[in-house]
Amino acid sequence: MDSRPIGVFDSGLGGLGVVRELKKLLPNEKIIYFGDTGRVPYGTRSPDTIKKYARQDVRFLLSHGVKTVIAACGTVSSVALDDIKDEFTLPLFGVVNDAADCSLHATKNGKIAVIGTEATISSGVFEKKLKIGGADSIGVACPLFVSLVECGFIDENDPCTMAACKKYLAPIKSFGADTPILGCTHFPIISKTISKVLPGVVTIDPSKEAARSLAATLSAGGMLSSASGSVEYYVSDEPRRFKDLAQIFLGEEVTAEKIEIEKY
Amino acid sequence: MDSRPIGVFDSGLGGLGVVRELKKLLPNEKIIYFGDTGRVPYGTRSPDTIKKYARQDVRFLLSHGVKTVIAACGTVSSVALDDIKDEFTLPLFGVVNDAADCSLHATKNGKIAVIGTEATISSGVFEKKLKIGGADSIGVACPLFVSLVECGFIDENDPCTMAACKKYLAPIKSFGADTPILGCTHFPIISKTISKVLPGVVTIDPSKEAARSLAATLSAGGMLSSASGSVEYYVSDEPRRFKDLAQIFLGEEVTAEKIEIEKY
Repeated sequence: MDSRPIGVFDSGLGGLGVVRELKKLLPNEKIIYFGDTGRVPYGTRSPDTIKKYARQDVRFLLSHGVKTVIAACGTVSSVALDDIKDEFTLPLFGVVNDAADCSLHATKNGKIAVIGTEATISSGVFEKKLKIGGADSIGVACPLFVSLVECGFIDENDPCTMAACKKYLAPIKSFGADTPILGCTHFPIISKTISKVLPGVVTIDPSKEAARSLAATLSAGGMLSSASGSVEYYVSDEPRRFKDLAQIFLGEEVTAEKIEIEKY
Repeated sequence: MDSRPIGVFDSGLGGLGVVRELKKLLPNEKIIYFGDTGRVPYGTRSPDTIKKYARQDVRFLLSHGVKTVIAACGTVSSVALDDIKDEFTLPLFGVVNDAADCSLHATKNGKIAVIGTEATISSGVFEKKLKIGGADSIGVACPLFVSLVECGFIDENDPCTMAACKKYLAPIKSFGADTPILGCTHFPIISKTISKVLPGVVTIDPSKEAARSLAATLSAGGMLSSASGSVEYYVSDEPRRFKDLAQIFLGEEVTAEKIEIEKY
């Protein structure tokens, strides 16, 4: 038994997908969420900047006494996690490893695609893991997708999002991948449009896989909570916009508190 | 005569439009440009955050001994400039007043549209000035436009940008404005697509108007330089991406140096 909270952070809103899955799988856990809305997006920033931000995000969650942290952000998981995890004593989870494993099980033709931010794709982290697993892979940066989601272009038939999908995903079609990993936590919100442009594929949602993996780890280690579940939300810019957009990811409005992340 | 440099800053790249115009009008001036690429975009952030960032940006330029500063950013000009300008002893220019004046001269039917970031439109600053000038106006936030430009969706027939323009600009068509102000320094890059969706209108580019106004002010005050012109570029994140994207705004590659803006 361990009633300390689980910490989840993201550059902004995408990590709410992990919160949604954790609430389903682990209804007794207290979750502390931090969305770095004052410094979003991470995906176009340099690796050094992303590592600096990720360290501050983890330290903020540690100040709330968390027992573990999920970096619910494809960019942080790809670019920063391997470098910073040894600096902390608590277990740090990302959204790369379990998604890569799941895609290796799901593919039928051994061809996997990874879509993500520029930083995630430049890191090549997914591709390295997929190669070790014996699959061929193609990585495609789709930097506009985060903005499309945050600006509300999320109807499955939205002509703007459809046009962006056609442009970005054309190389994946040519490559013949049957299993695209949605390597940024924003992307599952437009997965229906992605599936229309890539018909017949099975998309992998890293938020689901990360939540499943964390649940299994906590259970195996006797670290589950028996208290009643709850979520506290913190952000680094004015909370109004976060509240409005949380609806897209969680299907419900939430209350968030602003904190000064530069102090951590 | 005053050979001190002119300072120009923006949340990222859009302010390069002002640099382009200044180089044309004032070829003997030294320009110091700061693009806050580590904290872009400003337009979705809260007014307090935008003011904090703008103060640091001005202080950085002051450390280079500038004689004047242009906030070449629609968001800063709308949300922060009136509040912070009295805190500094040098003259601070924005990209709102001259564009508003120009649109009042250009409109034939007295109906002006303002498009900009969420922060610019929420501020209502353009609309207030246009009302004083006797025009009816409509303000429309187009938050995706910045990302469309920065992600390179800038061909005048790009189907994604065209679809976004049709969605955002529909209320302007209904309102019947004949003069849209491109109230964010990124927007002139996609002005041809905007004009296709709003045929027959005259778009106002605030960068051009701000550069003209500064040139006239310096000339009238005997503050022009007689040295040879040059531009130094500084950014707050890794310069590679800035160099690539500068091409879009300036038509040439540039070299930029990274600085720590949080220290100012």
